[in-house]
Amino acid sequence: MAGMTADISPGEAERLDAEDELAAFRERFVPISDPGVVAYLDGNSLGRPLRATADRLQELVAHEWGGRLIRSWEERWLTLPEEIGDELGRVALGAAPGQTIVADSTSVCLYKTLRSAVALRPGRDELVTDTANFPTDRFLVESVAAELGLTVRWIEGDADVAAVTGPRTAAVVLSHVDYRTAAITDLAAVTRLVHERGGLVVWDLCHSVGSIPVELDAAEADFAVGCTYKFLNAGPGAPAFLYVNARHHEAFGQPITGWMGAADTFGMAAQYVPAPGIRRALSGTPPVLGMVGVQEGVALLAEAGIDRVRAKAVALGRWVLALADAWLVPLGFTVASPRDDDRRGGHVTLRHPDAERLSRVLIENGVLIDFRRPDGIRIGLSPLTTGFAEVRRAMDRIRELAG
Amino acid sequence: MAGMTADISPGEAERLDAEDELAAFRERFVPISDPGVVAYLDGNSLGRPLRATADRLQELVAHEWGGRLIRSWEERWLTLPEEIGDELGRVALGAAPGQTIVADSTSVCLYKTLRSAVALRPGRDELVTDTANFPTDRFLVESVAAELGLTVRWIEGDADVAAVTGPRTAAVVLSHVDYRTAAITDLAAVTRLVHERGGLVVWDLCHSVGSIPVELDAAEADFAVGCTYKFLNAGPGAPAFLYVNARHHEAFGQPITGWMGAADTFGMAAQYVPAPGIRRALSGTPPVLGMVGVQEGVALLAEAGIDRVRAKAVALGRWVLALADAWLVPLGFTVASPRDDDRRGGHVTLRHPDAERLSRVLIENGVLIDFRRPDGIRIGLSPLTTGFAEVRRAMDRIRELAG
Repeated sequence: MAGMTADISPGEAERLDAEDELAAFRERFVPISDPGVVAYLDGNSLGRPLRATADRLQELVAHEWGGRLIRSWEERWLTLPEEIGDELGRVALGAAPGQTIVADSTSVCLYKTLRSAVALRPGRDELVTDTANFPTDRFLVESVAAELGLTVRWIEGDADVAAVTGPRTAAVVLSHVDYRTAAITDLAAVTRLVHERGGLVVWDLCHSVGSIPVELDAAEADFAVGCTYKFLNAGPGAPAFLYVNARHHEAFGQPITGWMGAADTFGMAAQYVPAPGIRRALSGTPPVLGMVGVQEGVALLAEAGIDRVRAKAVALGRWVLALADAWLVPLGFTVASPRDDDRRGGHVTLRHPDAERLSRVLIENGVLIDFRRPDGIRIGLSPLTTGFAEVRRAMDRIRELAG
Repeated sequence: MAGMTADISPGEAERLDAEDELAAFRERFVPISDPGVVAYLDGNSLGRPLRATADRLQELVAHEWGGRLIRSWEERWLTLPEEIGDELGRVALGAAPGQTIVADSTSVCLYKTLRSAVALRPGRDELVTDTANFPTDRFLVESVAAELGLTVRWIEGDADVAAVTGPRTAAVVLSHVDYRTAAITDLAAVTRLVHERGGLVVWDLCHSVGSIPVELDAAEADFAVGCTYKFLNAGPGAPAFLYVNARHHEAFGQPITGWMGAADTFGMAAQYVPAPGIRRALSGTPPVLGMVGVQEGVALLAEAGIDRVRAKAVALGRWVLALADAWLVPLGFTVASPRDDDRRGGHVTLRHPDAERLSRVLIENGVLIDFRRPDGIRIGLSPLTTGFAEVRRAMDRIRELAG
């Protein structure tokens, strides 16, 4: 495959789909019940449901919840946060067991990890984040800074990390993949740099987990959080995850000291004693229904393999770029995502001055993309469900409707 | 019905079941699929699943998530936290619309409300809670106090509130119904007393919501939180709820400033501007699957009516006491719950020196009660599912197995 001179014929789409090793995984998902959907290119906002998740939910209601009743907590549910976390760590995060846990929402996990990170660096009074970071991340950095009397140092791009970090840096909060442009930040390099200055890093993996391989342990990462409802297909508002590197476990504490993070949850102890290891990151009762989707999403990813997923994401990205160059750039679109495969995550963002209206029209016509202010149209590429012909069909409709 | 001389014959159980206005509601629940269950008396830990919840989950996966896909956020899901919250407020909390929201876990909601309460009382440096409060509540009071440099004043029973509250009291955290004894605290009286001293109260309604009528607005309550997986039957780890009285909304802020609590969630604004009203209590993406159970649980309660639920809970409680007096007190059990109907919530706790072993034996024999350290056996009474003959059967088994 090449850039500008690529073959974008229907036959090429057919060939790519025929050669796609992951094509069969599409059958593992609940078919899209709305016949009006031409293409679903928003799996990076909400991944599609797995058949296994639908089945497991029925089974869970009928037998675990409806049959074993309260006994299911001891029999199955209580350990799900770390069991699923371990498997997620193994399959998608490059994390050895005992460091990843499924809980809460990304926002709550981010709050917990950021507070913890600051507590591990007493005397340091600066937080660093990017002006282009996702709103929740920016908002939380600002409010944690305000509550603890810290200063926020804003950067514009990870190249600035070197300039602003130093002996005052407590923690840096960055996204691994930019939610707007899909640009990948070099997680290992940034982590190393911040560590050299004595600071810690909290990584937001929302737009990378399940889409590109993450190697947290190898990078000696400190903390990471992310959501499971995008490339992991876990369902709307499914619980998030949180990673704390084992070397921080002993000193690691978090402010929301609920009973599920205590050493002896049912001991009803007089004092809060944190559970050993990652379990102390828990607070309230684990959201069992939501965790079913995470478990099934991670299991499917394990079957597919993150490397094959990544390879297909790259191929899909190239395919979008080839189609965009041939059809859309001449109509006034520009490509906001990196063209370098190694720097581009699991979506491609196109810019257009009329993107907001155009997005509405596209969605009305069954091409489900995502609009991101001010002028971005995100083409989400979910390797387990997205096909090459599907993408071509969508790009063709965009050409037609924007023409 | 009377105490010691009550008729506890099988015919009386039959009569009570026949006269039970709520008996038909039992058919609205998924039948217990485990034939070994003799009686389910732990609905105050985990309520049973509604058929409607099972159906809605299937429908949601197939059509909302699997068909409308990402569009469901705008079409249905985004406003669920306040829609369900409003209905819960109306049906169970005595709360006018716009003050209740479904989100997170009880622990996280408690953290948010407690931090908010303290922020509303600057200069006051004491928190008050009960040594018998639920662990999460005690742990969070202690850790919030530690992080903000406050002192915890411990009480033993709500009669102590008058003695320890004063000009230094920022907030009092109490449970409306004691998780061990089912003793009801006078919510209105305690709220009034604390207000007279200039403090605020955060009520934990976990063991009262859906079981006894709560009148938050009438009591001029400040904050309340609670879970939905007990008497509301919303499912294991279903999201919690949080109430903030409208008079605090303008000044109310909470520390976990995620995008869902921002005024314009998808505006991707540079600064966090809190949403007007209760929505600012949100942080992360709402847990949609878990909210289905809350919605259905609240809808069923609306049909049944909280007053009828309460009346049946009282009758069930009396029934347990009559059976206990006749059969179990002679065997060395004591009654830990108030005998006064007006002071007793939705469960009855019996004490026995050998309660831990006995609880294991009971559960093995299909009598699903709850053991609470050190020596409590909780008999949970869920008026929408628990029957009088079922209770008699269970008490008979307890007599047999403890004899």
